[in-house]
Amino acid sequence: MNCIFCEIAAGKAPVEIIYEDENVLSFLDIKPLNIGHALVIPKRHYENYLDLPADELRNITLISQKIAAKIVKAFEPDGFNIIVNSGKAAGQSIFHFHYHIIPRYSDDKVKFNIVFKSYGNGEMKQIAEKIKNV
Amino acid sequence: MNCIFCEIAAGKAPVEIIYEDENVLSFLDIKPLNIGHALVIPKRHYENYLDLPADELRNITLISQKIAAKIVKAFEPDGFNIIVNSGKAAGQSIFHFHYHIIPRYSDDKVKFNIVFKSYGNGEMKQIAEKIKNV
Repeated sequence: MNCIFCEIAAGKAPVEIIYEDENVLSFLDIKPLNIGHALVIPKRHYENYLDLPADELRNITLISQKIAAKIVKAFEPDGFNIIVNSGKAAGQSIFHFHYHIIPRYSDDKVKFNIVFKSYGNGEMKQIAEKIKNV
Repeated sequence: MNCIFCEIAAGKAPVEIIYEDENVLSFLDIKPLNIGHALVIPKRHYENYLDLPADELRNITLISQKIAAKIVKAFEPDGFNIIVNSGKAAGQSIFHFHYHIIPRYSDDKVKFNIVFKSYGNGEMKQIAEKIKNV
């Protein structure tokens, strides 16, 4: 199994590290949407968000909040996004769970191509029921 | 203070609820990027991600993971995104913290307008240092 993030976690691939402890590593994305765009990964391999055990998810999320606070202090961006891409269709390209932390600026060119869908009459209730009762 | 999500949390504005407990509410976004696009909010008012106390962040994240799993079971999408928009420049429109959970499909039209930035020679190390030492 060749996983670049496992190699990075093992110290076998060079990255610019922002944070490291026994379980979590954060480093700069080499293809940043904005300067300071960071990734936060568990050192253990989990393919995606749903695979993370509760203790890992709790831990990595609290650390990500602290790293986001540091990025905000360092660059004073106008905002930031926390993003998880789960699955290729969602934009996941490395199949080892990671949070993106992306500093944002009013004039940056990072935009969602927004095409809102809409619910038909009564459909919203059906959809909510479907999720609740799954 | 008029906060629509506080009103929703207080049961004063109608939404299609997916999940509710003492502290957390999840409901369908009325402007979905895809059918089943859900929001997860703390009932208490926190403006954004950095304002969430650790216990609230831990709790709402674990619940969001469970809701994402339900959405995956309900619709079998090709993937999903978890997104936090923090600040207007990052796309936040309601200033009461919320996770977006967005089911995704290979052929959907939800795309990031991706314009990668790049680091100059040695800049990446400087940027990492700046974040670490903030």
